[in-house]
Amino acid sequence: MEFKPGSLLEKIVYPDDLRKLTEVELPQICNELRQYIIDVVSVKGGHFGASLGVVELTVALHYVFNTPIDQLVWDVGHQAYGHKILTGRREVFSTNRIYKGISGFPKRKESEYDTFGVGHSSTSVSAALGMATAAHYKNEKDRKIIAVIGDGALTAGMAFEGLNHAGFINSDMLVVLNDNCMSIDPNVGALNEYLTDITTSQTYNKVKDDVWRLLGKISKFGPNAQEIASKVENAIKTTLLKQSNLFESLKFRYFGPVDGHDVIRVKKILDDLKNIPGPKLLHCLTVKGKGYKFSEEGDQTVWHSPGLFDKHTGKIIKVVSNEPQPPKYQDVFGNTIVELAEQNPKIMGITPAMPSGCSLNIMMKAMPNRAFDVGIAEQHAVTFSAGLATQGLIPFCNIYSSFMQRAYDQVIHDVALQNLHVVFCLDRGGLAGADGPTHHGAYDLVYFRCIPNMIVSAPMNEEELRNLMYTAQLDETKAPFSIRYPRGNGVLSDWKRPFSKIEIGKGRKLTEGHELAILSIGHIGNYAAKAIAELAKKGLSIAHYDMRFVKPIDEKLLHEVFSKFNKVITVEDGCIMGGMGSAVLEFMSDHGYSAQVKRLGIPDSVIEHGEQKELYAECGYDDIAIAAAAYQLLEATGESTNAVAG
Amino acid sequence: MEFKPGSLLEKIVYPDDLRKLTEVELPQICNELRQYIIDVVSVKGGHFGASLGVVELTVALHYVFNTPIDQLVWDVGHQAYGHKILTGRREVFSTNRIYKGISGFPKRKESEYDTFGVGHSSTSVSAALGMATAAHYKNEKDRKIIAVIGDGALTAGMAFEGLNHAGFINSDMLVVLNDNCMSIDPNVGALNEYLTDITTSQTYNKVKDDVWRLLGKISKFGPNAQEIASKVENAIKTTLLKQSNLFESLKFRYFGPVDGHDVIRVKKILDDLKNIPGPKLLHCLTVKGKGYKFSEEGDQTVWHSPGLFDKHTGKIIKVVSNEPQPPKYQDVFGNTIVELAEQNPKIMGITPAMPSGCSLNIMMKAMPNRAFDVGIAEQHAVTFSAGLATQGLIPFCNIYSSFMQRAYDQVIHDVALQNLHVVFCLDRGGLAGADGPTHHGAYDLVYFRCIPNMIVSAPMNEEELRNLMYTAQLDETKAPFSIRYPRGNGVLSDWKRPFSKIEIGKGRKLTEGHELAILSIGHIGNYAAKAIAELAKKGLSIAHYDMRFVKPIDEKLLHEVFSKFNKVITVEDGCIMGGMGSAVLEFMSDHGYSAQVKRLGIPDSVIEHGEQKELYAECGYDDIAIAAAAYQLLEATGESTNAVAG
Repeated sequence: MEFKPGSLLEKIVYPDDLRKLTEVELPQICNELRQYIIDVVSVKGGHFGASLGVVELTVALHYVFNTPIDQLVWDVGHQAYGHKILTGRREVFSTNRIYKGISGFPKRKESEYDTFGVGHSSTSVSAALGMATAAHYKNEKDRKIIAVIGDGALTAGMAFEGLNHAGFINSDMLVVLNDNCMSIDPNVGALNEYLTDITTSQTYNKVKDDVWRLLGKISKFGPNAQEIASKVENAIKTTLLKQSNLFESLKFRYFGPVDGHDVIRVKKILDDLKNIPGPKLLHCLTVKGKGYKFSEEGDQTVWHSPGLFDKHTGKIIKVVSNEPQPPKYQDVFGNTIVELAEQNPKIMGITPAMPSGCSLNIMMKAMPNRAFDVGIAEQHAVTFSAGLATQGLIPFCNIYSSFMQRAYDQVIHDVALQNLHVVFCLDRGGLAGADGPTHHGAYDLVYFRCIPNMIVSAPMNEEELRNLMYTAQLDETKAPFSIRYPRGNGVLSDWKRPFSKIEIGKGRKLTEGHELAILSIGHIGNYAAKAIAELAKKGLSIAHYDMRFVKPIDEKLLHEVFSKFNKVITVEDGCIMGGMGSAVLEFMSDHGYSAQVKRLGIPDSVIEHGEQKELYAECGYDDIAIAAAAYQLLEATGESTNAVAG
Repeated sequence: MEFKPGSLLEKIVYPDDLRKLTEVELPQICNELRQYIIDVVSVKGGHFGASLGVVELTVALHYVFNTPIDQLVWDVGHQAYGHKILTGRREVFSTNRIYKGISGFPKRKESEYDTFGVGHSSTSVSAALGMATAAHYKNEKDRKIIAVIGDGALTAGMAFEGLNHAGFINSDMLVVLNDNCMSIDPNVGALNEYLTDITTSQTYNKVKDDVWRLLGKISKFGPNAQEIASKVENAIKTTLLKQSNLFESLKFRYFGPVDGHDVIRVKKILDDLKNIPGPKLLHCLTVKGKGYKFSEEGDQTVWHSPGLFDKHTGKIIKVVSNEPQPPKYQDVFGNTIVELAEQNPKIMGITPAMPSGCSLNIMMKAMPNRAFDVGIAEQHAVTFSAGLATQGLIPFCNIYSSFMQRAYDQVIHDVALQNLHVVFCLDRGGLAGADGPTHHGAYDLVYFRCIPNMIVSAPMNEEELRNLMYTAQLDETKAPFSIRYPRGNGVLSDWKRPFSKIEIGKGRKLTEGHELAILSIGHIGNYAAKAIAELAKKGLSIAHYDMRFVKPIDEKLLHEVFSKFNKVITVEDGCIMGGMGSAVLEFMSDHGYSAQVKRLGIPDSVIEHGEQKELYAECGYDDIAIAAAAYQLLEATGESTNAVAG
């Protein structure tokens, strides 16, 4: 399918071409850019609302600044579609987020206009400050550095750290605050309220009015008094705007708020700001999904990444099946925590800005006093949970696996060392799919496994997830407990079964066999099961064990396995360096077993984006690859112990 | 040695006893508490300046609040000595930071008055908010929650995240800001300047004066005008104090600044604040080292943790040796980076608030435009480094191993996935000693090893550290490069040798042998060498390999080892779960080797504080334990392959 750009957009390959347009043509190019995004995303999928919201900003920034000499850093990056289209990638934009296609986020490898790879939020100020510091050091006086950050991303402590440092070293950079009152879900936090305060100017206006009213009374004392009163008002205004401002507190010069959809005005302001030295912040008000009726007026959380839709009717296309379908793991979590919390008053729910992404919104609706969206603030989410746990409550802290990297110290320092009863639910564990390397939950089994006191588990299906959650909240458990599961759907349509306790550290045998054993952890075990079924058709007898726990690992089960088998395959949807397979090797070494072991998992390299199935195949652990590995291992029978095992 | 408390302090075992004192006795108890801290720390060592600075705060808080029902959370915790002495631990205070003695930080296991274990900074607001939320949920209306946080700790993003959330949910808690303009080193950041602004009130005073001057002119219009002018001034004052305040922006009610050494006044204010609902912040001005002439007037960084000293003369006791002593690893780093930076203009130095702790202060002095203290902000430090690297510079980002946990996501997301040339120097790798579990650098080899593109190395001595640093900054290296080394001294008195390049991923053979091989990584290899020398005296021939790199691991060397030896010991000053030993097992498995391998390292449990040597022994990898392990493994000769390996 080909996408037809408008008459101006058609001529633009790089920002140089954009800069040939006259100022009056800017509104038209914005319209065309917006339409192009709608055309492509409606049939190809991807993030939507965020990019529509920054069309004018994108055009104005590339028009005013000399990219790529000037360095433009997009925070998070799911809003950078317009940027990609204007920087040499219009022709390939329809491959966005597709296997082997362009990335859904800025990426240094992809373009020199992508100055800094993103995906996680709130890194732009720090990165831009590094660039600005380098430019200063290298005496590149004309090079401008701009970070574009959303109000949601600003709630993460990391952004604050960057602002605090930038203000201190008086660095020459511009931060554009793209304020749309949203992250993926509506924003939370005092900061958000504060921004709204500025925007609506009630505070400023009220004070101004109060003072003016008082001063008004003075005017009766004569024209001179009126003039003085006016001077007083000016003094107050200057002072208030300067001093009442959070950003000015951090030594940034604050400008705005300005309508971020008035491209001519934004362009003019950027022209001015270009020549003002020091750290500056421009506060732009934008609307997520702007310019497309259905997203602008509809549910912005839904339109963040709506999937495919009919661009004319705004109808989101859903594949409907006649059969009952397995639910998403996240929804199993979301429903199950409510079910458990109804029985156990100690349970609380915590998410850092992912209520719809992890389905804690179900609990937030059902039990608003027991479920918290703390904003984009993973560090705080974990230590806040630890604080709750000190008071005898049992928090379920749900954080995507790759975002949990943000709170690693808090997990160790605040939860594990104190052995507090916090349950970590790691959604998006394993390869995450189209979001790509920044979002792959590749490392959690490794980085959690080495933490003392931590229980590390992963369910193979929805029932297991429910039972692990049930087990995790029992009083007798009383330890940090992590449960990781992947993005996407499970395998059971009939998933809502009664709870039953799982013995901690106990795996299970799924299939008897005698030629080789496969040990799997988590959902990927279903691929192993499929491989085993295929091999059984060919007469191969392969045993299957679902480990359930990476830690404590089931030593009894492993004794059984290594007493019986001298060929073993481990399968995990996580990096093989130090993961579950390595835990098995450690067990073998500690207990003097020798066997040929082939570890399947994410190799030690950066895995790009694509559908999960495509990536499993690439990494060699989809059902076909698992079967092939088993085949290969069985063929090696009879070779010396020094033979290569895989 | 016994320590004699003053006449009031003598009677105080728990805060209940303190609360029996009259208000007028509070200054005396403060003096006695201060003197007791001086008496003990001068001969036993430990943190010093911070605890002296909060003596009055400590007394006032326990006097006013009903601890331990009311929850008092100390941030960082090195200032909590007074708190420990007043809460049942005066008698054991002389065992502070000593092996098997009490911890130098608050610790839940130690006392119910220690509501939250600390060590790393900036966790208190989040933890306290969790407690306040729990109290609210459980309807414990009378329970008060107080966090005491320093201005240094406030620069970490995590504290901001906590404040932002607390203001949003309007939680009932008090944050006491202990503002002494210091962390361990002088504080940096725009926030710090801002606090100074408030304190000196120049801004407020200037505005007030300007306006008043204008209003003054109005008074000639009559007494009524004067009265109105006065009202105007009040309106301005209210507005300014409210709106100009960063904390008010975050919906905290701000009180202060107040002299934190006026115990009666602080006590009165706390009495008042106790009954004000919602989030409140009390800004206290204190002096680090207060009340002890030499620390108050001396170098506050030195007096943060001075070691032993003569309390009468303030002379810090240094053990002087006639022999040249091996330097601290941190000083080798500090001197070497300057040496390298003189040759290579691309090199920059970055530390998050540890210039004296990691010795980057040497470069900050020599090359102020190329070395940055970014404040307590590990996340920012790493991404700022990444930003520098995008511009072709080569940042050396020095972060203590345990603090690097704070920046784990930034290392993955901003550096490794983009394969940027950032050099990470991880000081305090391995067991850290008296600071205990929060500061042990136990996990870095594991959590770095699983990251794609990351080179993971550890030098065995000072020369190796220099050569690894040299190698890391070569243009041809061009990848994320980590170098970890321990707290304390190296082994070479003649350490400043010419640089030579180390081939990346290449280990070295130190000792030939034929009965067994020991593979070590990093400084702990010196203990292995000692063990081998001892065993050689007994006629045992043990080979020693210094791996140098955990990743890429030296496969050629390992092929040599496993071709030759069927008994191998791995030694690392890091957790054994997933560490270097596991990397060796992975190699063996991948290449079909079988051998008995005993992995020595930090076991999977929380290791408490003590001297490093004591802890190495406890964990089974000091020289004696290594020798014992070798002995045991050799004795197992001839047993079946299924024998227990160690």
